Amino acid sequence: MTRWQDKSLSPDERAEALRAEMTLEEKVAQLGSAWPGNEQLNGNVAPMQDVFARGGVPFEQVRADGIGHLTRVFGTAPVTAEEGAARVVALQREIVEETRLGIPAIVHEECLTGFTTLGATVYPAALAWAATFDPGLVERMATAIAEDMRAGGVHQGLSPVLDVVRDYRWGRVEETMGEDPYLVGTLGAAYVRGLEKTGIVATLKHFAGYSASRAARNHAPVSIGPRELRDVILPPFEMAIREGGARSVMNAYVDLDGVPVAAHTPLLTGILREEWGFEGVVVSDYWAIAFLKSMHRVADTVGHAGALALAAGIDVELPDTLCYGKELIELVRSGEVSEELVDRSVQRLLRQKAELGLLDADWQPQAAAVDLDSPRNRELAREIAEKSIVLLANDGVLPLDAQRIAVVGPCADDPLAFLGCYSYPNHVLPRFPEFGIGVDVPSFVDSLRRELPDAEISLHEGCPIRDEDRSGIAAAVAAAEEAELCVAVVGDRAGLFGEGTSGEGCDAEDLSLPGVQDELVSALLATGKPVVVVVVSGRPYALGRHASAAALVQAFMPGEEGGPALAGVLTGRVNPSGRLPVQVPRVAGGSPNTYLHPPLGGNSEGISNLDPTPLFPFGHGISYTAFEYSGLSVSAQEIPADGTVSISVDVRNTGERAGEETVQLYLRDVQAQVTRPVLALTGFARVPLEPGQSRRVTFEVHADRTSFTGLDLRRIVEPGAFEVFVGRSAADLPCTGSFEITGQAREVGPDRVLTTPVVVS
Amino acid sequence: MTRWQDKSLSPDERAEALRAEMTLEEKVAQLGSAWPGNEQLNGNVAPMQDVFARGGVPFEQVRADGIGHLTRVFGTAPVTAEEGAARVVALQREIVEETRLGIPAIVHEECLTGFTTLGATVYPAALAWAATFDPGLVERMATAIAEDMRAGGVHQGLSPVLDVVRDYRWGRVEETMGEDPYLVGTLGAAYVRGLEKTGIVATLKHFAGYSASRAARNHAPVSIGPRELRDVILPPFEMAIREGGARSVMNAYVDLDGVPVAAHTPLLTGILREEWGFEGVVVSDYWAIAFLKSMHRVADTVGHAGALALAAGIDVELPDTLCYGKELIELVRSGEVSEELVDRSVQRLLRQKAELGLLDADWQPQAAAVDLDSPRNRELAREIAEKSIVLLANDGVLPLDAQRIAVVGPCADDPLAFLGCYSYPNHVLPRFPEFGIGVDVPSFVDSLRRELPDAEISLHEGCPIRDEDRSGIAAAVAAAEEAELCVAVVGDRAGLFGEGTSGEGCDAEDLSLPGVQDELVSALLATGKPVVVVVVSGRPYALGRHASAAALVQAFMPGEEGGPALAGVLTGRVNPSGRLPVQVPRVAGGSPNTYLHPPLGGNSEGISNLDPTPLFPFGHGISYTAFEYSGLSVSAQEIPADGTVSISVDVRNTGERAGEETVQLYLRDVQAQVTRPVLALTGFARVPLEPGQSRRVTFEVHADRTSFTGLDLRRIVEPGAFEVFVGRSAADLPCTGSFEITGQAREVGPDRVLTTPVVVS
Repeated sequence: MTRWQDKSLSPDERAEALRAEMTLEEKVAQLGSAWPGNEQLNGNVAPMQDVFARGGVPFEQVRADGIGHLTRVFGTAPVTAEEGAARVVALQREIVEETRLGIPAIVHEECLTGFTTLGATVYPAALAWAATFDPGLVERMATAIAEDMRAGGVHQGLSPVLDVVRDYRWGRVEETMGEDPYLVGTLGAAYVRGLEKTGIVATLKHFAGYSASRAARNHAPVSIGPRELRDVILPPFEMAIREGGARSVMNAYVDLDGVPVAAHTPLLTGILREEWGFEGVVVSDYWAIAFLKSMHRVADTVGHAGALALAAGIDVELPDTLCYGKELIELVRSGEVSEELVDRSVQRLLRQKAELGLLDADWQPQAAAVDLDSPRNRELAREIAEKSIVLLANDGVLPLDAQRIAVVGPCADDPLAFLGCYSYPNHVLPRFPEFGIGVDVPSFVDSLRRELPDAEISLHEGCPIRDEDRSGIAAAVAAAEEAELCVAVVGDRAGLFGEGTSGEGCDAEDLSLPGVQDELVSALLATGKPVVVVVVSGRPYALGRHASAAALVQAFMPGEEGGPALAGVLTGRVNPSGRLPVQVPRVAGGSPNTYLHPPLGGNSEGISNLDPTPLFPFGHGISYTAFEYSGLSVSAQEIPADGTVSISVDVRNTGERAGEETVQLYLRDVQAQVTRPVLALTGFARVPLEPGQSRRVTFEVHADRTSFTGLDLRRIVEPGAFEVFVGRSAADLPCTGSFEITGQAREVGPDRVLTTPVVVS
Repeated sequence: MTRWQDKSLSPDERAEALRAEMTLEEKVAQLGSAWPGNEQLNGNVAPMQDVFARGGVPFEQVRADGIGHLTRVFGTAPVTAEEGAARVVALQREIVEETRLGIPAIVHEECLTGFTTLGATVYPAALAWAATFDPGLVERMATAIAEDMRAGGVHQGLSPVLDVVRDYRWGRVEETMGEDPYLVGTLGAAYVRGLEKTGIVATLKHFAGYSASRAARNHAPVSIGPRELRDVILPPFEMAIREGGARSVMNAYVDLDGVPVAAHTPLLTGILREEWGFEGVVVSDYWAIAFLKSMHRVADTVGHAGALALAAGIDVELPDTLCYGKELIELVRSGEVSEELVDRSVQRLLRQKAELGLLDADWQPQAAAVDLDSPRNRELAREIAEKSIVLLANDGVLPLDAQRIAVVGPCADDPLAFLGCYSYPNHVLPRFPEFGIGVDVPSFVDSLRRELPDAEISLHEGCPIRDEDRSGIAAAVAAAEEAELCVAVVGDRAGLFGEGTSGEGCDAEDLSLPGVQDELVSALLATGKPVVVVVVSGRPYALGRHASAAALVQAFMPGEEGGPALAGVLTGRVNPSGRLPVQVPRVAGGSPNTYLHPPLGGNSEGISNLDPTPLFPFGHGISYTAFEYSGLSVSAQEIPADGTVSISVDVRNTGERAGEETVQLYLRDVQAQVTRPVLALTGFARVPLEPGQSRRVTFEVHADRTSFTGLDLRRIVEPGAFEVFVGRSAADLPCTGSFEITGQAREVGPDRVLTTPVVVS
């Protein structure tokens, strides 16, 4: 047994021992990756031809000196669980047996809406988890995903997405947990805990700023200053590292104020490593290092692109070695790049391999086939879907009691419309149509027919999701006119790079419903029949012109069990309890606009004619029962700058059926040295309540939770008055109070209190 | 004679001497202002009630200890030139005679589209000057404006607006000189020279960042980092100070990354004073200091708001003393605010008063009535209008030779549609309807009838500018069908705070034409008749759906002579020569988007489905003749980092009539340490050419012109390759070349070369 195999040593010592034995080629090889099958999946993406032309090197050559990561063995061309497991074993065996040192690779996969492989459970999209406001549920889901991956010999999952939504037009909004940093951070940390506790490495992405790209165009430049970055964009990453224990971080593709993140030393090393003390591994987003040359044009060769990224703090290049290859080795040999930079990253990666057991003498490739869509998974997918659906408005038409129902709309019978862009069916299978969806996804109309076996339910598409084809609208209108009630199911179909209306590279110019769906809904509303408008989408759409609908329901790509969940909400089997993690705008234009803004970011009558007030506010969602708030108490009128205040409120189910209310605490900093949001979500709790039941909800707010980045860019708790608001949404806050922080301003660091514990008694 | 009246001393010495004689009250009074008539004009603006409630203090009380500025004596409630002059004299006399020291006030007025007073010439809007690409013409206009103001006893004009357009939806786009910093800076410096050479103090506004507000909503927060601020937003201010000699600067209302500019020490003092060495006076935008309390909430009292602004570097509070009053005096007395800060600003203001002759012993209030709309003015207004009109597309239908013409559209017969928001008729007169327009503004249709006396010209409004009234569309369509040809004149009506569709506080949610004008144009195009679409607007609108028009013409609020100018272009009396200072977008959504972007800010096929390529590019504009480019030569393949390269090209009029071509030079920095624009306008020249004539245009490009803000935030000339493009617009660049900067990177400062001299031989 060599020293680096000695389990009695620390991972750091073992990594150092191994590193000392390595040639430069072997070290650099650990910083690279291989994606067998890459060309088959991506080789036809036109503008990246020059990037891919450098890939496609035979695996045997790529792994000759060892390899850091193996990319998506399961998630590329379709394989069964058995085939995937066998491939993992075979590839690892080849790496171990055919290289001098025999160090296995870290096997990573995508897993945003579940293990991204053929036939695996497709959970709701991240925006739907966010709508549950339920960290425990998200953690359970992550564990279920991780267990399935772990069985297949996978070590690392490329999730969660912690980007804070800044512009609803961005295609990747569906992959996020909404527009509030505290919500994103709380749920993101829960997801990370769920993954990490099974031993799977979680990867926080996209660090940082991706969601703020110009006009929400994918990869477009980000205009941002250091304060907004630190106060809005970064907190979820801090929470997921400290509260979740995340061991990997992936860079954002974009540039921040002209500096591409893949070459952004102050962010990747200054903040992440030096300030926060992150000790895990930073991986590049796919091809992001090569993009330093081809897209951002801050490097003239792939070797120099690699040198920039390495110096900035990217340890491992994904998904294929392009820049961290022989050109980088030459730059080290010539003295242009310090070998210490290589050593720094190799040390981090090998330490992680030691932690994962990959340096143990008795390590054997192990990967077994399991049921990737087990009943447990499906039940969990259903629970999340049910808890994520948001009832926006209801004039009493819901729960349904009509017997003749016209179901209309392009999402009513399209199972793919329920699945996110990073689901295997939408991410990969469009290139392999012979495999279909690969998993059972009941459509909405089938699910409704199952829930209401005696009802007469007709089905009309009305129009397609995207194309401007109006030919089916008349028949849909006629069906609505003949029915007692119409259910219109409209929204998105997720896809990649323009293949869909939501998802990566599927950005929107404005927030009208895609295609002619707004016209379809308007035509249905014009019939005068009660219309239930169900939006199944990856982003919020402007629904102002459909506000007269009898009911409005919002689902955010609810996954493989989305059909039954939606049907359950409509029939009343499920009491809706989802809450909006994003606003629903009134008008299609006027982006960007989120709830988290200073006074002049909102409605400023007399200054701008535009009123960005949404149709439905952040946090909104109603139920088939009703909840009443009362009895707000604040434990202290004054607290010191390191103190804690308890804020309590009674919430009571005043209706006739059980339900769950998400109690939301917002603070307002009355005056500060920089502009501050008019309201910021500071705590929340999902509270189940039987009819007539009342519970007291207490938020323990540490003064650190009021901290912000001050004028001199240091984070401070600033003394002064704070207004307290508790209620149902950012615009429905029946309980108000206040407290004051006294004394001197106090600087706080990365060890500050990041969360607001909540006690429900 | 006291020492401060001694003309043999320097203005600085005189100011110091005077300051030494002043009480604290007298000093603080100099930092304030008075706006007699303010309540009458602004008192009904609801959200500012608390601000105005503090105004309305009787003039005699405001000026008791003296006063710094007198606000808009002419530009408030309507006065004739005689009345205005008499009021200036009376107010100054009162100040001089009734105060202890007898220091006259600086009298300032608005003057963006001309002297903003009743009956004065309304020149084209700034966006129209920009479309001339003619600094000499802009300078002549500014001098004409200044001479009229100077005659009236005015000392300072609150122009020019140097905001670089970042989002076309912003209401104040019409007040700017477009989206390129070099164009804005060149024309802005010319305007400033024109003003300053008559002795009128020019005021650069809005310093800085106003145009980048979120979603283009007026006053909304600005997400921006230091590099974009320095490389895009600030250069026009540097040019106008150094190349124009501007003596005053006004702050922007917005906050930059959370710091309101009115309290932004690094900008107002660090950059402006310490880096650039600016020695003039910084005035607040109207009520901007009070907004620190009421809007930005960074101050708890008006006194503290004043203290913040004073410390940051705002010398004089406009338009009325609210924060720089007794509360500020109390803070100085209590020691909370240093008297040195008061002295610093008083010194600057008194120095300026000395320069203006206001401290001279023989100073007498002088103000005379002159013809404010003289033939010289009108001719100049006409010349600018004619040179600013941009012919976007023409299938040969123009110049008009039809005899039966249907003129349609809400801007065809509305003189006010030609005038900018800061024209007196649109800015003030809506509150005084009994005064009408106050100046002669021939409408388009009247002008066309005058140009074509024998033609049969019908007129139909079709629809209003803003309201959704479709009732007139049918009649307009019928008229088009009966005519040989239709001219549709559509666009904006400028107004304040929602009163118009363009102008301050008149922001847009998207770039569709206001109201139902797009429907009107579509209906006209559907007739199959040739339609000439004329857009008279304050911002570019999306014209993609009207691209099939026989001709497209863009005018940017062409002023009181806009009607005759437009008619002249259409009939061919005038050969169009305007060029776009902004892009004309294809689609209504997708903002923000300007031509000045790095690769990922443009069309990135395969990465985002959205293609922001405009319908007509920056710099575009065609003519009734044609110009051919050839013979590009670059004087050196390599230059040092402080060298100059000459870039020459031949341009030839290959058509049959005289015309003017704006030859444009763009550079591309092939690779840099930060992302750089794919193209940046580096030089331009408007070149008159007779038929068949050829001229050689030579641009002298100093290496400093390639400088940018590097990774460490210092401005550098970076060695490397540059591609050279010369041609007709940012997307039509027939001549290409290259050069290289060699040697080491060179840091450059505010003394760097800011301009590109052009020789036309």
